[in-house]
Amino acid sequence: MTTAVTRRAATDQDAAHARRTVEDLLGRVQHRMSDFLAAERDRYAAVHEHAVVAIDALSDLVRAGGKLIRPAFCLTGYLAAGGDPDDAAVIDAAAALELLHVSALVHDDVLDDSHTRRGKPAVHLLHATLHRTRGWQGESRRFGEGVALLVGDLALVYSDELMSNGPSGGFAEWHRLRSEVMIGQYMDVAAAAEFSIDPDLSRLIALIKSGRYTIHRPLVVGAGAAGRPDLAPALTQYGEAVGEAFQLRDDLLDAFGDAARTGKTAGLDFSQHKMTLLLGWAMQRDARIRDLITEPGHTPEEIRGRLLDTGVPEDVERHIATLVDQGCAALADAPLDPAWRGELTNMALRVAYRDK
Amino acid sequence: MTTAVTRRAATDQDAAHARRTVEDLLGRVQHRMSDFLAAERDRYAAVHEHAVVAIDALSDLVRAGGKLIRPAFCLTGYLAAGGDPDDAAVIDAAAALELLHVSALVHDDVLDDSHTRRGKPAVHLLHATLHRTRGWQGESRRFGEGVALLVGDLALVYSDELMSNGPSGGFAEWHRLRSEVMIGQYMDVAAAAEFSIDPDLSRLIALIKSGRYTIHRPLVVGAGAAGRPDLAPALTQYGEAVGEAFQLRDDLLDAFGDAARTGKTAGLDFSQHKMTLLLGWAMQRDARIRDLITEPGHTPEEIRGRLLDTGVPEDVERHIATLVDQGCAALADAPLDPAWRGELTNMALRVAYRDK
Repeated sequence: MTTAVTRRAATDQDAAHARRTVEDLLGRVQHRMSDFLAAERDRYAAVHEHAVVAIDALSDLVRAGGKLIRPAFCLTGYLAAGGDPDDAAVIDAAAALELLHVSALVHDDVLDDSHTRRGKPAVHLLHATLHRTRGWQGESRRFGEGVALLVGDLALVYSDELMSNGPSGGFAEWHRLRSEVMIGQYMDVAAAAEFSIDPDLSRLIALIKSGRYTIHRPLVVGAGAAGRPDLAPALTQYGEAVGEAFQLRDDLLDAFGDAARTGKTAGLDFSQHKMTLLLGWAMQRDARIRDLITEPGHTPEEIRGRLLDTGVPEDVERHIATLVDQGCAALADAPLDPAWRGELTNMALRVAYRDK
Repeated sequence: MTTAVTRRAATDQDAAHARRTVEDLLGRVQHRMSDFLAAERDRYAAVHEHAVVAIDALSDLVRAGGKLIRPAFCLTGYLAAGGDPDDAAVIDAAAALELLHVSALVHDDVLDDSHTRRGKPAVHLLHATLHRTRGWQGESRRFGEGVALLVGDLALVYSDELMSNGPSGGFAEWHRLRSEVMIGQYMDVAAAAEFSIDPDLSRLIALIKSGRYTIHRPLVVGAGAAGRPDLAPALTQYGEAVGEAFQLRDDLLDAFGDAARTGKTAGLDFSQHKMTLLLGWAMQRDARIRDLITEPGHTPEEIRGRLLDTGVPEDVERHIATLVDQGCAALADAPLDPAWRGELTNMALRVAYRDK
């Protein structure tokens, strides 16, 4: 491969230029999603006023804006693998990853009975409220959750429609990513219900439903789309380590983050009995934490205080730092342009140390 | 086109041979779904015992067997359009339509709180019961419905994975079919909640979420897969008429059918306030029926008796007969081999006069 090039150290300028390219493309991804949904709305507006409700729910979520982490990793994998930034097909692939994520969020909020999303009422709650205020027939909860179910389904089929326009080199990884995240979600819900302390299982779930879904597979979709499946092993090592760091940060943000920053309900892992790696480790050190979570009447503050007393949050911070190092080290010998290796390092830091 | 051939009258033997060809391929579709799910199970069995639960739920539904109406129309459209019966790609396309339908059934049963499906407990109820008997944490209803949500999502992504192996000529119609059925489902749920008497809206919903989804678009997917999009107009006319007949039979079976035959809960349209065309017309003649459905304490028998008194069920039977005639007439001048025109006529009769 291009050893002379890949061994050259990246300057900060090179990495910054790489990042600007990704950000330009992310702007196009955002427009693509909006335009796609607007065209669908136009198609259905003449049919009936009810025919656009689910599309509008998706447009609202897309407009509220997400972090676009999965499109960013897909585009970075694509560009780092030498993909053409002017090829519109990769924009559709990246938009597909984001709409898949929108689908997962809408369905997740039903699973977790989460109240807010992207700073607004979750779809199921909004529609349950509309049902109630209109005095409609039937149970408001079933109506609201049913609407969220259909809105998430619609996002799922739209995401797939977009991916079918994408470069076919990414399809195999895309199929794996999608079925795996559904299976990981079941494992997560079942582990929360069972609530037995099993950090190995917590780690497996974090790997399957979070790390691979968010980082490793989007990167490999992108590299595959650029015709470079040979990059998959290095991107996998990087993605699995950084993905675990991403999930651990998620655990910390849920427990200690600021809901005004994250735009979602805080302390959900407690109320939904999520057996996160953070909680699994903490319960191994202090069995009383399990009771604080499962018995009624304990406040999130009480759980937070007890968690801090175990020292586990500090250990998790140290573990995140180790994972970021491991992930970046995995790229050292990969045949990547140093600018992209530098940008992947920066991305690892951004996802591991985000505050929302 | 092959005018001499298409004008020739079909013998019963020709149509019977056509039907046997479709049935052979339907057997392959059933195997394809089973094999696909078995391979996925093998992939996940080593990961964790929870990783196969959602796959097993799908396998159970596939094994219980459905009517395979959508695969049958897809294959018939394909073969009638001259497609090669030995091409494995169309089997994947037909299997995709069935797995999409399995997804819709699992999600529908949550929307409608239906208790049985294919003669067994609905997925959400089975898993709510498992949750309760195991003494797991959290609310059993949310767990059961959450599992059904994920099982339906998994079926949806698997259906798409199968379709991506199918002939690309069917993709455009496939995308339309899927987004449209989600939008139609919302319209159905909203109409049930609103419960205003509006037969035009009932008919529109039947067209969108039932006729097009079940008959017209699967036929056009099949014809497109065989490279014959020119057949779409005739198949559309046929499919929309026969599709309305299909939905009206559905309404009658729900109201008057035998749950032991249909394998699903009877009288759901009453308890879920579904504004079907049957009920819409009946309420126009007898406003008291609306009260019988929305007020508590009235038995299905009482509603059935009052429905029969309106005379609407007999009118619906007459309307079904007219729709079947219209649908078959639409094929008269289409460039189809008479054997396939004959088999499409037989299929119209089978879906319009089915008892389950």
